[in-house]
Amino acid sequence: MAVKRYKKEDSSSYALGTTLTIELIKNRPEIVKRVFIHPNLIKDETYQKIITLCNKWQIPVEESIKAFNILVSKENCFVIGEFTKYEDLIQKNENHIVLVNPADAGNLGTIIRSAMGFGIRNIVVILPAVDVYSPKAVRSSMGALFGIHFQYFKSFAEYQKLVGERPMYPFMLKAQTYLYDVTAPKEPYSLIFGNEASGLPDEFINVGTPLIIKQTNLIDSFNLPIAVSVAMYEFTKEK
Amino acid sequence: MAVKRYKKEDSSSYALGTTLTIELIKNRPEIVKRVFIHPNLIKDETYQKIITLCNKWQIPVEESIKAFNILVSKENCFVIGEFTKYEDLIQKNENHIVLVNPADAGNLGTIIRSAMGFGIRNIVVILPAVDVYSPKAVRSSMGALFGIHFQYFKSFAEYQKLVGERPMYPFMLKAQTYLYDVTAPKEPYSLIFGNEASGLPDEFINVGTPLIIKQTNLIDSFNLPIAVSVAMYEFTKEK
Repeated sequence: MAVKRYKKEDSSSYALGTTLTIELIKNRPEIVKRVFIHPNLIKDETYQKIITLCNKWQIPVEESIKAFNILVSKENCFVIGEFTKYEDLIQKNENHIVLVNPADAGNLGTIIRSAMGFGIRNIVVILPAVDVYSPKAVRSSMGALFGIHFQYFKSFAEYQKLVGERPMYPFMLKAQTYLYDVTAPKEPYSLIFGNEASGLPDEFINVGTPLIIKQTNLIDSFNLPIAVSVAMYEFTKEK
Repeated sequence: MAVKRYKKEDSSSYALGTTLTIELIKNRPEIVKRVFIHPNLIKDETYQKIITLCNKWQIPVEESIKAFNILVSKENCFVIGEFTKYEDLIQKNENHIVLVNPADAGNLGTIIRSAMGFGIRNIVVILPAVDVYSPKAVRSSMGALFGIHFQYFKSFAEYQKLVGERPMYPFMLKAQTYLYDVTAPKEPYSLIFGNEASGLPDEFINVGTPLIIKQTNLIDSFNLPIAVSVAMYEFTKEK
């Protein structure tokens, strides 16, 4: 099989880097197709760890420079894990982060990593949206993607239909309630965020309890991973 | 004067983009050397706004494609503001964000923007560190750089000497106190963060009250702009 630049419609994608590839094999060994090793990789403990993991799961290892020339631009990358893109389902009775039309792969990856840190392991994305399996999103998640549950929905209505009634908190500049005035509910909840440039559509003002993170008028809004992370911090902290 | 690719040792830098250039002129008109307009820029209200600002402050405007070819890679950028790098001083009696050896321009810009949003307008950077005037940092700050006070120090000791005694909170994975257990002091304070990869050096455990943002063991640590933003959120919110 030839290696080619990743495109959204491809059935496989790539984890670019040593740590990412280790996270990939540890979390989802069954989807790993092969691992590329750059000839310049120093054969140290980390190398041994990868080889041991690959042997354990019978994953082919190819030492070649070619895959790196095609897939890696300028980064310092000596290991690549090729994996089959998988369909995943969220856990219905857990807390969810719901991202409506996120557009930036780096942001999506950063949010996934933060969510892992705050212990929220179910991410919902409402289409149209960026491709979570793109090498950039995988890389920005620092491999956290392989440790969470992730599901695309065609519309917010479709997601609502699946989860039914639960506390929902859309984050909007038009909201009247500050984040710090809310107490996290005991039952599973959803924190909902809009697109980086346009935010949530106005109709979300009628969904659950709209919230705003208090800010000065010196910026338009916080960037998306920061808004999501601050919200997760407030909802998951012990009080 | 010829336009050339930005280098750290240059005496001027560039705001790449319309919004950035407007923020630059509004906040620091005295440092703007000239504004480049791409011939393809649509001559709409925003264009008029830039021209009006430039006339008001007697800033030369050059319509040419050349500067864009040299300075802009792939971004959708039709306005460039060239500015003289300036020396700035922090306000001694305000709250400070102290970044020890930050290495990433995008992170530094994102932190500056978040700080504006949380109303903390003094940023200290301990050298060695990334160049805050690089076009990438300016761009990531979305122009917030021009609205805050910013100062480099050669060492943390030099910074301590300037500010004297005040509540200081170094953020470290080795800290014993959780962020959410702290009440923000009434007097001006400093929130201190280390390098993206290595964190703060161990000796900071003896500085003020070391804090940690509670996290699962599923990630190594939160990314720097997220840690700084969560900390600012907790310290600046009304309780």
